[in-house]
Amino acid sequence: MTDNDLAYGIPSNWGRWGDTDERGAVNLITGEARARGAAEARTGESVSLARVTRSTPLTAGPFAPTTASTGVQTIMLHTGAGSPAMAEILLVNPHHPEITHLDAMSHWVEGGRTYPGVAQADSSGPLGVRHGAASAYADGIVTRGVLLDLAPGGRLAPGAAVTGALLDEAAARAGVEVLPGDALVVRGGRHLTDEWSGVEALPGMTVDAIRWMHEHGIAVYAGDIGDAHPPLPGEVPGALHRFGLGRLAIPLLDGCDPAELAGTCARLGRWTFQFVVAAARITGTTGLPVNPLAIF
Amino acid sequence: MTDNDLAYGIPSNWGRWGDTDERGAVNLITGEARARGAAEARTGESVSLARVTRSTPLTAGPFAPTTASTGVQTIMLHTGAGSPAMAEILLVNPHHPEITHLDAMSHWVEGGRTYPGVAQADSSGPLGVRHGAASAYADGIVTRGVLLDLAPGGRLAPGAAVTGALLDEAAARAGVEVLPGDALVVRGGRHLTDEWSGVEALPGMTVDAIRWMHEHGIAVYAGDIGDAHPPLPGEVPGALHRFGLGRLAIPLLDGCDPAELAGTCARLGRWTFQFVVAAARITGTTGLPVNPLAIF
Amino acid sequence: MTDNDLAYGIPSNWGRWGDTDERGAVNLITGEARARGAAEARTGESVSLARVTRSTPLTAGPFAPTTASTGVQTIMLHTGAGSPAMAEILLVNPHHPEITHLDAMSHWVEGGRTYPGVAQADSSGPLGVRHGAASAYADGIVTRGVLLDLAPGGRLAPGAAVTGALLDEAAARAGVEVLPGDALVVRGGRHLTDEWSGVEALPGMTVDAIRWMHEHGIAVYAGDIGDAHPPLPGEVPGALHRFGLGRLAIPLLDGCDPAELAGTCARLGRWTFQFVVAAARITGTTGLPVNPLAIF
Amino acid sequence: MTDNDLAYGIPSNWGRWGDTDERGAVNLITGEARARGAAEARTGESVSLARVTRSTPLTAGPFAPTTASTGVQTIMLHTGAGSPAMAEILLVNPHHPEITHLDAMSHWVEGGRTYPGVAQADSSGPLGVRHGAASAYADGIVTRGVLLDLAPGGRLAPGAAVTGALLDEAAARAGVEVLPGDALVVRGGRHLTDEWSGVEALPGMTVDAIRWMHEHGIAVYAGDIGDAHPPLPGEVPGALHRFGLGRLAIPLLDGCDPAELAGTCARLGRWTFQFVVAAARITGTTGLPVNPLAIF
Repeated sequence: MTDNDLAYGIPSNWGRWGDTDERGAVNLITGEARARGAAEARTGESVSLARVTRSTPLTAGPFAPTTASTGVQTIMLHTGAGSPAMAEILLVNPHHPEITHLDAMSHWVEGGRTYPGVAQADSSGPLGVRHGAASAYADGIVTRGVLLDLAPGGRLAPGAAVTGALLDEAAARAGVEVLPGDALVVRGGRHLTDEWSGVEALPGMTVDAIRWMHEHGIAVYAGDIGDAHPPLPGEVPGALHRFGLGRLAIPLLDGCDPAELAGTCARLGRWTFQFVVAAARITGTTGLPVNPLAIF
Repeated sequence: MTDNDLAYGIPSNWGRWGDTDERGAVNLITGEARARGAAEARTGESVSLARVTRSTPLTAGPFAPTTASTGVQTIMLHTGAGSPAMAEILLVNPHHPEITHLDAMSHWVEGGRTYPGVAQADSSGPLGVRHGAASAYADGIVTRGVLLDLAPGGRLAPGAAVTGALLDEAAARAGVEVLPGDALVVRGGRHLTDEWSGVEALPGMTVDAIRWMHEHGIAVYAGDIGDAHPPLPGEVPGALHRFGLGRLAIPLLDGCDPAELAGTCARLGRWTFQFVVAAARITGTTGLPVNPLAIF
Repeated sequence: MTDNDLAYGIPSNWGRWGDTDERGAVNLITGEARARGAAEARTGESVSLARVTRSTPLTAGPFAPTTASTGVQTIMLHTGAGSPAMAEILLVNPHHPEITHLDAMSHWVEGGRTYPGVAQADSSGPLGVRHGAASAYADGIVTRGVLLDLAPGGRLAPGAAVTGALLDEAAARAGVEVLPGDALVVRGGRHLTDEWSGVEALPGMTVDAIRWMHEHGIAVYAGDIGDAHPPLPGEVPGALHRFGLGRLAIPLLDGCDPAELAGTCARLGRWTFQFVVAAARITGTTGLPVNPLAIF
Repeated sequence: MTDNDLAYGIPSNWGRWGDTDERGAVNLITGEARARGAAEARTGESVSLARVTRSTPLTAGPFAPTTASTGVQTIMLHTGAGSPAMAEILLVNPHHPEITHLDAMSHWVEGGRTYPGVAQADSSGPLGVRHGAASAYADGIVTRGVLLDLAPGGRLAPGAAVTGALLDEAAARAGVEVLPGDALVVRGGRHLTDEWSGVEALPGMTVDAIRWMHEHGIAVYAGDIGDAHPPLPGEVPGALHRFGLGRLAIPLLDGCDPAELAGTCARLGRWTFQFVVAAARITGTTGLPVNPLAIF
């Protein structure tokens, strides 16, 4: 192993599942991990981990609203006078902060290459994504999920640095052991704040937490903690994207909101569940909106 | 019960779950039905019921392709020279035939009203959907699914009329009993044909099949059989949308492709499975692309 | 002439230029009117009558701006690493208040019909515009223009009612005679106000002013005065659109900004000029963004 | 003058009009040139030089058309039941081959810089265009236009190389002298062919023709001859864009169709006219659709 293979104690998963793989750490979901997830489904109660994305309409006319969120815009179609069917066109910005979305392998470029070593221009270009598209997960990501609530009932302090130790503490509180192939769901309570206003510093993942994800064999990440903004003092900026997605090839479910999930877990006294996520089966994109479910 | 309440032997579900309900027949998924679905998850193997929707890119320049599919178009973003992140904007046409999508209650209008009796203009308008949006199912539709394969290993004849008797035969072949709250998945093999070329008549659901769905308490419909085109001789045109969606308030997962599912069911000798579908949590739309999963 | 033919003293131009005409009052631009316009071009100095429409970009990523104007949105294309050509896709909302645009005949419906009596569904539908599209003016509207400045150096009072007498006063001040086939440019100074904030009442055209336009044979209207909001007390709401566009078939250049033009006219002591407007030659729309020019 | 300043005998106009200029060769339209253009307007008859761009509609539903041109797509808006106003949203691809459009200075990058030496990232980026936008010509480009018809009544041979000598011949045939500040309109008859099918080689401009444009002080180029495809044997590929736009800073009106103009010129025996073009006043783009007019 060379220096290049090990950054900050985090090995690269490039090549671990072959030179043409498109799914990265989802390969850690073995038959055993999959069955462990299935065993969590008992009552069938389901909870969404997605943020509510309010679509905003495009309208015309002199007194129409003049601004829209740039996350999802809807254009209600004129389907004809007396048509029995109403329909619309959607303009979707998958990597928008107000949308819970999947970051696929093609989303990230490191040194001109994308996982697992494909030249960037061979991965994505003007004609869309040819390697590492979100549709690589078209059959769904189905495994066991574990919620680590870093701030039960409250929220992390502004600019908090999430470390492996914090994750261990949350696991201990919940009495769970995170296992290879699990979906890691982290709650820091950031959606309780007005973080997007830029008034407060966003908490974020440290390199240490990414190393922890590697050691625990995380297959997919979902949480309300992403990369800090501004960068954490003394930390590598963008560790979750740069090392988690880019190096470990863990697909990220960016911008989750596990608030309701935390309530359900607390009520049921269960911090594990069946985890199911399946984006629309659309080819050729670096990301897609998703609605991950926890099923109990 | 008046004539108005019973069309072709199909009662109206308008009002059955109250005057403000937005979920329709999904209310049939009781705790018992939900648990029945959960019990189907054993190995955790998952199969997608969605068609592959090939996105087409919008590009510029003199020699760019000049036509695009109107289902999903992608616009690869210039994220800046040297940016480590690739991203795109999507233009999505949810009710397009090449996209597996959810038809929510607001999609259908009957006599100027939408389920369960809301004046159309109070359901949807230039500002989007206010009642009966696809986001009514934001927590996912999770229940037991049953595959009825109407033409194992082959396909229905062009212009075939799907009746309750055909559904009963398929259930008998599979040795399954369809129960209230189940997701009904039907395969007729239409995607084996070049049906969209207009060369062949499309098979379709009859009023009799919709009545069957009512009698069996179907909560959600997913299949490759929709409404016939041209209309079936002697049948009411558009029965699935008009009576299934509009009257029984069964959300439709339009344009599914259960070909791979049929193979898995045959291989495993199991025609029931956990059924999970969750569209992106986007508010205000009559429909959204989905990727329904069958989990074994 | 029946009552139906004469509303508020305004005759209908429906049928005046035949049953299939798509250009309406632009037919008033005779060879004589056209030559009168050409004769105004002397130095060739040109001034734009269009508002500045600031396009807003759609971007992705966690810290991207989250709102956009809904007038024109731009999506900068990734044209490939090292591409020598930068390009974008535009999402344009032609009838947006922040865009100077042409209202073509198909834009307006009266009693289920559009000029000159076409059933609405035969004029426009889900497949676009078939009759009365903006492209009816594809060869440009080229004639003499006359500026009537209603409030030289200032602006009309909030909620002012623009009448024929006010237009006559402005013409007298400028020493000009408005002739059949002229383009009428009106300045009220509304863009000096924060009118779109809704704080102040918008000035607007009265039925009397529309009657004046008829009597003077106006071929096309361009100005910063449109229909009042809220409606003028004791006046028919929407007179400019309803009677000017809908009845007289005068195409409207909505949302012009003649502020700079007023300055040029005052400087040169000339209130007439060559008027030239040509929207992009795009078929099938009810309106298009335009940039009308006054050439001296 | 260094080698860098003179490529193939074509000097660079970078810096000629200052370090912050955004209009390039349009600066050659002096007061004299402008007046020369105005003097051409006599009858006021106008002819469009734009191609007809057929917009294609986005529709939904099972039997909707499934492909669209990627030039301009229209989405007819549902403006509400009984609304008197019809409207749409447009998706516009300005640099599409089926659209006559303006290439502004920001469209072209040479050695990481755009005219007149701005670092590319300071000219355009994810947030749109900051320097050299199409809106630099917001007051219109108004001057004299000259038509050089290279193949009167017919068309150039496939793959023809347009040289300065060919341009001189056409000028001699028409008996015109091209002067500094003129708009050069060239007709080769390419739209008579099925060139976009790829069956035939496209004619194109040679470096020699670009040198000719420099020597004659062309302010703006409009024509149906662009860059050859495939590249002309023994010629520098992309000479019109690379040297005409990129080096001489001549804005290009790409994809014009001067067929009708040629007919008018022949009929009138006049090969000069007033030339007027004004794109919609939209900021922040590398290009915009335009409809250039020839006024006689």
